[in-house]
Amino acid sequence: MAIPRQVNICECWARDGIQGEERFIPTEIKLQMINQMVRLGFRRMEATSFSHPKLVKQFADSVEVLKGLPRADDISYIAIVPNQKALERLLDCCQAGYGVQEITAIISASEDHLLANLERTMEEAKPPLAKIVRQARSEGLKVIGCIGTSFGCPLSGEVPLQRVVELTDWYLEQGADYIMLGDTTGEANPLQVRRVYQEMLGRYPGVDFIAHFHDTRGMGLANTLAALEQGVVYHDSSLGGIGGQPSTKRPKYHYGLSGNTCTEDMLVMLDELGVDTGIDTIGAIELSRRAEEICGREMLGHTTRSGPVRRCSSQPLGASALKPGREVAPALLLWQPEMAGASDAQVAEDIIRHALGKSWPVPGGLKLKLDDLDIKPWPGQRSVLLTRFTVLEVGERPRLQALCQKSDGEIVFQGPLSVTFTAG
Amino acid sequence: MAIPRQVNICECWARDGIQGEERFIPTEIKLQMINQMVRLGFRRMEATSFSHPKLVKQFADSVEVLKGLPRADDISYIAIVPNQKALERLLDCCQAGYGVQEITAIISASEDHLLANLERTMEEAKPPLAKIVRQARSEGLKVIGCIGTSFGCPLSGEVPLQRVVELTDWYLEQGADYIMLGDTTGEANPLQVRRVYQEMLGRYPGVDFIAHFHDTRGMGLANTLAALEQGVVYHDSSLGGIGGQPSTKRPKYHYGLSGNTCTEDMLVMLDELGVDTGIDTIGAIELSRRAEEICGREMLGHTTRSGPVRRCSSQPLGASALKPGREVAPALLLWQPEMAGASDAQVAEDIIRHALGKSWPVPGGLKLKLDDLDIKPWPGQRSVLLTRFTVLEVGERPRLQALCQKSDGEIVFQGPLSVTFTAG
Repeated sequence: MAIPRQVNICECWARDGIQGEERFIPTEIKLQMINQMVRLGFRRMEATSFSHPKLVKQFADSVEVLKGLPRADDISYIAIVPNQKALERLLDCCQAGYGVQEITAIISASEDHLLANLERTMEEAKPPLAKIVRQARSEGLKVIGCIGTSFGCPLSGEVPLQRVVELTDWYLEQGADYIMLGDTTGEANPLQVRRVYQEMLGRYPGVDFIAHFHDTRGMGLANTLAALEQGVVYHDSSLGGIGGQPSTKRPKYHYGLSGNTCTEDMLVMLDELGVDTGIDTIGAIELSRRAEEICGREMLGHTTRSGPVRRCSSQPLGASALKPGREVAPALLLWQPEMAGASDAQVAEDIIRHALGKSWPVPGGLKLKLDDLDIKPWPGQRSVLLTRFTVLEVGERPRLQALCQKSDGEIVFQGPLSVTFTAG
Repeated sequence: MAIPRQVNICECWARDGIQGEERFIPTEIKLQMINQMVRLGFRRMEATSFSHPKLVKQFADSVEVLKGLPRADDISYIAIVPNQKALERLLDCCQAGYGVQEITAIISASEDHLLANLERTMEEAKPPLAKIVRQARSEGLKVIGCIGTSFGCPLSGEVPLQRVVELTDWYLEQGADYIMLGDTTGEANPLQVRRVYQEMLGRYPGVDFIAHFHDTRGMGLANTLAALEQGVVYHDSSLGGIGGQPSTKRPKYHYGLSGNTCTEDMLVMLDELGVDTGIDTIGAIELSRRAEEICGREMLGHTTRSGPVRRCSSQPLGASALKPGREVAPALLLWQPEMAGASDAQVAEDIIRHALGKSWPVPGGLKLKLDDLDIKPWPGQRSVLLTRFTVLEVGERPRLQALCQKSDGEIVFQGPLSVTFTAG
C-alpha cells in the first residue's frame, strides 16, 4: 500500500512528555516551548492536562498555560480530561476565551490498566466518560477517544483486539471525532500494528485513527511506519522521546523507559521516507536540545545527537541556510602536495569551497574572506583532510568557524571566515 | 512476503561494539562476555579485530582473545582483517590452532568513506583486498565481504546502488561467502532497505546477505525488519547498541550516536514477531547490563531498562523459571474489604498466588511459606493493590521478596517468602 504523502503530527511534549518529570517546569518555559513548536510548523499539540493538580503537580498551572498559548485559526491545542471536574475546569477556560480545540478522553482496553490509571473498573469508567464526551462535543470541542493499552498491558499481558473494537464502537456512539489506539507502555510490535490497523481501518472506513506509540522497547519508529503503511495519517510523538506514567506517589506499574516515540527521530524518518510533515526538522532537533536543558538531562532522541541524514541540499548555499550554532557536516578531501602551488589563501579557499560544496551547490557570487584563518604549512605528502564548519554569526556577512585536520588529527588550518553572497 | 521463521544473529559487541570505547577492556573480561554469549545461544560472534594495535588499542590483545575463546563445532568466530599484515597475523593464530572461522573484509561503497577509514582510494583498495579474500579462502576461512556505507555516506551523502552492485560482483568474483551491506553510520531508512534488498536478493539468488545496521537515527529495528521481510536471515547487532567509528586519534567523520542495532532490543522484537533466534533473550538483557558495568555507563538498549514485552508464560511456574535478581512484572488486584475474612497469612497467600498467576500458570503443588512476611492491617476500603516480586535465591526452595502496595504508595505487605514445588 502507498504510504500517505502527508501526515499530521501531534507534539505531546507539553503533556504526555513532561507528565513523568518530577520537577515542575515553570509555566513560562512551557509556553516558550509551545511558542517555538508553533514557529516550527506544529499545528496539533497537547497543551496540558486537567488531571487533579494535587495528583499530577506538573499540571497545576494548566489554566495559566492555556491563557498564555499563541493562538491561530489553524492551530489545535489538546487537553487531557480524565474526569468531569477536569472537564468543567476546562470549559470555564473555553468560556473565558482561552480554551482548547480538542480534548482527549481516556479509557483502557485492559481493565487492570484502567484500575491502575483511573482506579475504575470498565463498568464504572464508561458512564462518566460518556458524559464527558457528549458534553465536550456539545460545547464545540473535538473529542479524541483514547483507548489505552490497545496493543498489550504491562499488568495483564495480551489484550484481545475485540476489546479495542468494542471501545471504538462505544466511543463512536458517544460521538468521538478521533480514535486513538494508545500503546501506552510500548507493548506493540510492527506486525501486530499492521494487523490491528488493517482490521480497524477496514472495519471503520472514514474514522480518523491516531497512532500513539511509546518507545519502551525501541520499536516506536518501526510501529509508526507500520501504522503509516496502513494509511494512518495522525501520529503522536514527544520531543526527546520522553513521557509515560505520570509522576505521582503511585507505585510504578511497569519498568524502564516509557517515553513517547521521539518527535525529532520520527521527523527525520518521515523526511527520509518522503512524507511531508510541514515541520522544520532541524529546528525540532534544536528544540529538543533546549528541552534537554529544561529537564536537566539527555533524553532519548537519536537525531538530537546525530542530526538528520546527510544530503546535499537542492538549494544553493545562501544566508538563510546558515543558522547560528549549527554545524556543517564534515567533508573529505584527498590532499596531494602539488595542490599547494598557489597562494596559501587561495589553496585554503579551494578546500573550503570544495567542503561547502558537499552540503550545498556553491553559487557563483559567493565570496570568502579568510584573513583570520590560521593556515599551517601544507602537508608534505598525500593526506586525507577533513574539513568542518560551525556557524558563528548570521546576517549579511555570516561568519563560520572552519577546522581542517589531517587523519592523524593534525590541524591544517582553522579560524573564522566570513561569507558574502552577491548576485552571481 | 512471509518473514523467515528463523534468523542467524551475529553478536558484534566484542569488535564493532567496543571499538569506539576509549578505555581498554581487559582480555579476561572480553572472554567472560563471549563465554556468556555462547551459553546464551549465540553461534556467530565478532571476536576481535586485527587492526593495527597502535591504531586501535582496544584490539591490542586480539591474539590473546583468540587463544582464550570457548570452542565448539557449531560456533563461528569472526575477526575483522583490514590489511595483508592483519591477515598474516590472523593466519598464524589459525595455524597455531586458535583461529577464527570467518573473516570480514572491508571496503566502502563511498570513496570518501574509504579514504577516511582506510586512507585508500577505490583503485588502491581493491588489489590488496582481493588478495586477502583469496588467501583467506584458500586457507579454509569463510569470507564476509563487507560493503561499508551501502546506504549512504556521512561524508558525501547518497550512494548510488550501482556501486554496491559493482562491489558485490567484485567480491563474489574473489570468492566471498557472504555479502554484508553495511549501514556503517546509520543512514538507511526502511523503505530504502526494502528497495535495496529486493533488488539485491533478486539479482543475486543464493547469495547470503548480512544486514548490518547502525542505530544512529533510531531506525535500526525498523531497518532490520525491512531486511527481514525481504528474506534476509543474517543480522548483526551489538549488546547495548554501542559501536561505530573506532577510537583513534582520527577526527570523527560524523556526529552523535553511531552504535550497532541493539542486540537485546532486536531479540525482543524478533521474539514478538515469532521469529526463532535460538538465543535466551532475558539472558541477553542481563548480559547487556553486565556490559554496561564493564563500560561504566548506561548504553542505548531500551529493553535493558524495560525488559521484554509482558506475556503470561505457557510453562507453569517452576524452579527453572526463577533466576536470581530477576523481577517479576507487577500484578494488579482490586481489593475489597470483605476479602479480609480469613487469616492474614491466607489472605496474603491468595493475593500472592493471584499475582504470580499473572506471569505463570501456578501449579497445584506450589507451596508458599510466608512466616517472614510483614503484613499490615488490610485496607478498610476498596483499593487497587499492586504486587511485585524480586527473586532472592534459587534452588530447591527459591525465595522471593514480595511487595504489595496500595495506589497511594502505602505498603500492604512486604518481605521474603519461600516457594516449594512438589509433584502435583
